[in-house]
Amino acid sequence: MSALENISARPSFASFAPPSRTLMGPGPSDLAPRTLAALARPTIGHLDPAFVSMMDELKELLRYAFQTTNALTFPVSGPGSVGMETCFDNLVEPGDTVIVCRNGVFGGRMIENVQRAGGIAVIVDDTWGEPVDPQKVEDAFKANPQAKLLAFVHAETSTGARSDAQALAAIARRFGALTIVDAVTSLAGCELRVDDWGLDAVYSGSQKCLSCTPGLSPVTFSPAALARIQARKSKVQSWFMDLNLVLDYWNSAKRTYHHTAPINSLYGLHESLVQLAEEGIENAWARHARLHRMLRAGFEAMDLAFVVAEPWRLPQLNTVHIPADVNDADLRRQLLTDFNLEIGAGLGPLAGKVWRFGLMGHSCREGNILLCLEALATALTRQGRPADADAAFAAARRALAD
Amino acid sequence: MSALENISARPSFASFAPPSRTLMGPGPSDLAPRTLAALARPTIGHLDPAFVSMMDELKELLRYAFQTTNALTFPVSGPGSVGMETCFDNLVEPGDTVIVCRNGVFGGRMIENVQRAGGIAVIVDDTWGEPVDPQKVEDAFKANPQAKLLAFVHAETSTGARSDAQALAAIARRFGALTIVDAVTSLAGCELRVDDWGLDAVYSGSQKCLSCTPGLSPVTFSPAALARIQARKSKVQSWFMDLNLVLDYWNSAKRTYHHTAPINSLYGLHESLVQLAEEGIENAWARHARLHRMLRAGFEAMDLAFVVAEPWRLPQLNTVHIPADVNDADLRRQLLTDFNLEIGAGLGPLAGKVWRFGLMGHSCREGNILLCLEALATALTRQGRPADADAAFAAARRALAD
Repeated sequence: MSALENISARPSFASFAPPSRTLMGPGPSDLAPRTLAALARPTIGHLDPAFVSMMDELKELLRYAFQTTNALTFPVSGPGSVGMETCFDNLVEPGDTVIVCRNGVFGGRMIENVQRAGGIAVIVDDTWGEPVDPQKVEDAFKANPQAKLLAFVHAETSTGARSDAQALAAIARRFGALTIVDAVTSLAGCELRVDDWGLDAVYSGSQKCLSCTPGLSPVTFSPAALARIQARKSKVQSWFMDLNLVLDYWNSAKRTYHHTAPINSLYGLHESLVQLAEEGIENAWARHARLHRMLRAGFEAMDLAFVVAEPWRLPQLNTVHIPADVNDADLRRQLLTDFNLEIGAGLGPLAGKVWRFGLMGHSCREGNILLCLEALATALTRQGRPADADAAFAAARRALAD
Repeated sequence: MSALENISARPSFASFAPPSRTLMGPGPSDLAPRTLAALARPTIGHLDPAFVSMMDELKELLRYAFQTTNALTFPVSGPGSVGMETCFDNLVEPGDTVIVCRNGVFGGRMIENVQRAGGIAVIVDDTWGEPVDPQKVEDAFKANPQAKLLAFVHAETSTGARSDAQALAAIARRFGALTIVDAVTSLAGCELRVDDWGLDAVYSGSQKCLSCTPGLSPVTFSPAALARIQARKSKVQSWFMDLNLVLDYWNSAKRTYHHTAPINSLYGLHESLVQLAEEGIENAWARHARLHRMLRAGFEAMDLAFVVAEPWRLPQLNTVHIPADVNDADLRRQLLTDFNLEIGAGLGPLAGKVWRFGLMGHSCREGNILLCLEALATALTRQGRPADADAAFAAARRALAD
């Protein structure tokens, strides 16, 4: 028997042929055919002059998406959680006090990030499904005037609630603190103006309203955030995320090798952003708002209740209460099996209690909404909770016409 | 003037059309057409049952590539440097002594990783281009019996030198230490037997001899390494890299959401590994060795001298001295411009002194070698250092026939 046979038989698997789903969960969203095609373009080197030119375009396209002139704007080579950690690891020094707002899962992750970076988190809690309360943030600053940072989630992916990023950043500024903002779900799906609102470190993800493949995290840092990073007393604890090193690759004429960039995923992100620029960012925001109204009308016609109240409801992430006596897992399995439709389950304390319907980027289309209403009405009716698809369609169409 | 115009004009860029290069640098290597095609398959959710089945196949395929039965074998969702940091952040606790071997750039990065994780690095230096000296490692353990880890690079991408991973791991075992091994360039390009050699934590990259797109880092951990991670006294400093959390997604029946996996890149990795299994890992090692002999014969016919002596020369990464009076940057630019051929520059102290020719994965093909010899002979001759392409071809063909 050879060593090979001892260790592990030679596996014999076929190429993977994924089913063709419609993605209406909290991300990934559907990729446009143009974006999928871009992923398959021939790989070139990460220091190739042609690639470097594309990097420059990418940065300009991201500045447009974020509505910023920040020089330090680029996609981190990792999922959104790496973008998050990049912000915290670079801006938090051991012993720093950080006010962290928690009104869902992702605010909780921010606390973990602060603590692992050696910071002290002062937690401002709000009910899941509600926005962050600016008054509580103001009180937290008054009680902790030494706080150097305010961290909050602009669009809570676990609940579908938007918070008032502009108001929160204004409070931080009054107390001399910088802001770290999670814009994973908000970027390109609803109004986000990094410069006008004075946000300092903002991270997002490629797989939500940008409708690119997951694995990239666009970030942007204000000049004040950059100055603080450059004035750090202690080394950033992560070598990979240390912006003082990454900058030599993404933001200097030298293009010093730091790590091998995820070339093909970056082709995809470039193509997503080119499409966003073609549509226009304000038109993209308006499309999400308009189609949210369509989905909402259909849901209301089926007596589905939203978790988040207006005006804090995110158009791109619609969270509804699961009706009584409906089996969550069974229903989602039916949608997937019978309609190839993916929707999102609840997270944390909301598990089993809510569904999350994403209308993100290329997934935010009329056809997807009609499929969703049809599939949901069918599955609910099968579970003994009759839902009227005709009424839902009619309501949805009327909402679109308004 | 609208806010949009104030901030940033709407960019107007075309889709990116990369040139079609032949990649013979230190990675990325050429992707096979099958692998490129896999990247463009429709994105599905990271918790989709179809995706979860593919993850299981991926793990089995990676175990085969690593020649291991380690349960904890999966691709980290980030470039090789994230795989590296995942190993160090999980295995090093503050105050731990780690013996780190440095015979090139990537050993140096290991030192950075140890220190940023709060460890104490005992450095064993060897000349760049030479393998790690086992005697020095033995001496370092004798002088530092408290050392808990030995870290070394199996295949130094900056020099093209292989080290004797089996012998080094045996020393560590005798002193009760675990090993962290950089196999970024070695995996699938030359013999690597994780179980037979007793390696504990091994990380690699997707873009070298696996010929997938960059951005994924296959890792494998022995049961002893896993036990040490689970017995840690302190929290892993990175939330994203904390294996105690990642495991719930990659290695448990629950498949708890941790982060959104880079779906399409993972399609590509699966396809690369299916091709590797079809060829057979030992056949892949043999192909790299055989075509290295072909390239070497051609280079020797052109009087190009290798940096690394046999038997430590890596077949998949061929480093040669730049001949006197040849302009490094000009020549590489000519190769890229006139032949669409990318080769690698020297790194660190070897910058301007060596070229690195990768023969990795799908790039390790006869046609690439012939193009490389032709291009190099032409460019050298243009720079006033005549090189005989005919002689090089003849020598290369003879080497292949032997």
